Amino acid sequence: MDTTRLKLFSDAVLAIVLTIMVLELKVPHGTDAAVLGPVLPVFLSYILSFVYVGIYWTNHHHLFQGRGRVTGAVLWANLHLLFWLSLFPFVTGWMGQNHFARVPTAFYGGVLLAAALAYLILQQAIILAQGPGSALKTAIGPDWKGKLSPGLYLAGIGATFLRPWLGQLFFVAGAILWVVPDRRLERWASPAGPGSPELDSAVSGLQNPVSQRHDHQSAGD
Amino acid sequence: MDTTRLKLFSDAVLAIVLTIMVLELKVPHGTDAAVLGPVLPVFLSYILSFVYVGIYWTNHHHLFQGRGRVTGAVLWANLHLLFWLSLFPFVTGWMGQNHFARVPTAFYGGVLLAAALAYLILQQAIILAQGPGSALKTAIGPDWKGKLSPGLYLAGIGATFLRPWLGQLFFVAGAILWVVPDRRLERWASPAGPGSPELDSAVSGLQNPVSQRHDHQSAGD
Amino acid sequence: MDTTRLKLFSDAVLAIVLTIMVLELKVPHGTDAAVLGPVLPVFLSYILSFVYVGIYWTNHHHLFQGRGRVTGAVLWANLHLLFWLSLFPFVTGWMGQNHFARVPTAFYGGVLLAAALAYLILQQAIILAQGPGSALKTAIGPDWKGKLSPGLYLAGIGATFLRPWLGQLFFVAGAILWVVPDRRLERWASPAGPGSPELDSAVSGLQNPVSQRHDHQSAGD
Amino acid sequence: MDTTRLKLFSDAVLAIVLTIMVLELKVPHGTDAAVLGPVLPVFLSYILSFVYVGIYWTNHHHLFQGRGRVTGAVLWANLHLLFWLSLFPFVTGWMGQNHFARVPTAFYGGVLLAAALAYLILQQAIILAQGPGSALKTAIGPDWKGKLSPGLYLAGIGATFLRPWLGQLFFVAGAILWVVPDRRLERWASPAGPGSPELDSAVSGLQNPVSQRHDHQSAGD
Repeated sequence: MDTTRLKLFSDAVLAIVLTIMVLELKVPHGTDAAVLGPVLPVFLSYILSFVYVGIYWTNHHHLFQGRGRVTGAVLWANLHLLFWLSLFPFVTGWMGQNHFARVPTAFYGGVLLAAALAYLILQQAIILAQGPGSALKTAIGPDWKGKLSPGLYLAGIGATFLRPWLGQLFFVAGAILWVVPDRRLERWASPAGPGSPELDSAVSGLQNPVSQRHDHQSAGD
Repeated sequence: MDTTRLKLFSDAVLAIVLTIMVLELKVPHGTDAAVLGPVLPVFLSYILSFVYVGIYWTNHHHLFQGRGRVTGAVLWANLHLLFWLSLFPFVTGWMGQNHFARVPTAFYGGVLLAAALAYLILQQAIILAQGPGSALKTAIGPDWKGKLSPGLYLAGIGATFLRPWLGQLFFVAGAILWVVPDRRLERWASPAGPGSPELDSAVSGLQNPVSQRHDHQSAGD
Repeated sequence: MDTTRLKLFSDAVLAIVLTIMVLELKVPHGTDAAVLGPVLPVFLSYILSFVYVGIYWTNHHHLFQGRGRVTGAVLWANLHLLFWLSLFPFVTGWMGQNHFARVPTAFYGGVLLAAALAYLILQQAIILAQGPGSALKTAIGPDWKGKLSPGLYLAGIGATFLRPWLGQLFFVAGAILWVVPDRRLERWASPAGPGSPELDSAVSGLQNPVSQRHDHQSAGD
Repeated sequence: MDTTRLKLFSDAVLAIVLTIMVLELKVPHGTDAAVLGPVLPVFLSYILSFVYVGIYWTNHHHLFQGRGRVTGAVLWANLHLLFWLSLFPFVTGWMGQNHFARVPTAFYGGVLLAAALAYLILQQAIILAQGPGSALKTAIGPDWKGKLSPGLYLAGIGATFLRPWLGQLFFVAGAILWVVPDRRLERWASPAGPGSPELDSAVSGLQNPVSQRHDHQSAGD
């Protein structure tokens, strides 16, 4: 099996997860804006989960941008990641429909944690499959984001039991961590220097130089 | 990430949005044609939304027909567009199930507006990524349709509060704007002259000469 | 837009239509086989619709096997076909849940009819786009199946008002028409002669020699 | 039709089957962990079905890794397999919501059995289409797994009527059969010797050397 096939299958699953999450937004009965009230927390959960699935979709591609080599371990590590991501609609709906109550929020964090660990396992399986001198190993470097994320989710689950909104804060922070740029840190690693500052900066943290075919080209090149 | 991947993922999301909208057409209880009565407005909303998703799918491809360059900003601008399009099933169902009542219709217009703005942002992000001499910037030209659409939706939202059907009229007009030809305007831009008049004319307005590989060939070539 | 994109999008829509139809098979309450009773007619409708979507998927590809040329007319004719196919889950559920009652069965036939006409329109749009000497026009030949099908569905709709099961019979016959071989007729057209008789014959009727790249190779070649 | 198209369509259907199964996990009402109690058996069924769909996805690709030749028989044998796999969400939900009661469990086994037989038919159709010296025939060898599986499911269905959990045991064993390695048996067949022992072993049983392009490369190569 080549990586193309694995990527397309994963894309399809992520696209479906993204889209069926919106089914948890139940069409309300009634015609005034007030009936949207109960839908609002589900909507907010939907936004958070949408961003997370977007992050996983983006990062997933960086994992497989090198030349294709899919061992059985990589294949099942990938299915394992998709399994946890497929639970997003369930926990998103449960958390949203209960106005971010304690236990559903903690379970939401639990799925975030499991997915983050599954991602690290998949990363490790690919590095093992690539053998010594793995391009992915070089590309991810110290991978502080990947290592920090599970800790954040774990802290968020704990914080939930103090105050549910405190747990939420950690989960939102976990998303910002991947979407918002970490320019100062990235600058050390990237010899190419800063790119188009207004727009690129918003997501530069997502771009790991995994392959030679470096698709992320800044306007300053 | 190359544009192929981004296009296929967007295609998958749009295909799913298109198809799950039909789930809002609840199978009625009863076996005579009268039970379809309550389903009719949902069906009409479905047609309108189907056409809009079709328009976005068509236009989306024109954006990415040039050579691939996906910056992080383009990637998230695209996810942002998909986010608003993913809300189509929700507002379509809400508007349809309430027989085009005022507030749901206004919210429908709101999602149309947000998607139109997200499209303009995505367009701008691609032009910025392509840098000076952007092929897309040249291709879209004055882009009066893109600029007119948000105004139409805004007017429609306002008109909803006079008469709901007046708002609907604006939203239908917005769809016709993209599907029906604007031959006189297009003729100025296109040196190739008019094509097969019976069939091509129906959608010539959708065809922007974005790339060299000009797939839209008229029978008269 | 090249045909690949259009085919992949159509494939995605068909795959989703196929799969969400199964959602109309509501999981029954209760644990003995008797609770499956009410599900049985839905299941039978599902089988019929599954076969029809399979037929459309197969035939759809033959339409686009030649070199790519997608005009705007072809694009919207294709979306028009997808629109009618997207209504399959709705009419399948309605007919099945009402044990093949008269009106739902007639509506099921109506969607079959509309899809068959949409298919003929799409075919015509492609032939018009290909211009004189259209490869597709040559390939479909007299196209008696395509022309017979709408008549069959129309007859079925009429027969429904005599006896619902009579209408069903026509719709099943319409499916068999495309799945079961028409060896005697095909032999006249195909200079290659009969292929592997046991297996190929089951579907030879579906194989139109649309392009030079003739994928259908019989064991006797 | 080339195999790429058939594989992509099958992938899309499998991705959707995988993801809509999670819709059977109904979002519970209530905010404490106890409300997850009734969801637990559905969740366990989901895991089992997820693994089975994963196995079919993996094995499906091995069938089509050789050069493309899709006869009509192969096409419809493939749709036949997809039909049975599309019933997974239904039987998974039924079995799970009834806490693995006898009859739903037996029906679950029935769908497993039908899918396994459909897989064997598809395999045979491909071998027939490839003609004498079929690469697939050589690759699958004695295919003891493919032949053992239907027997296991049949035994499981029977065992269900003694004790439902006994039937479950057979179905879980059937999954382990394909996921867990059979190193001693594989060693005889593979001249390349054992690969990376920690990770590869987990799935080596899934890797059949179908094509020359042998994607399964172990770290020890």
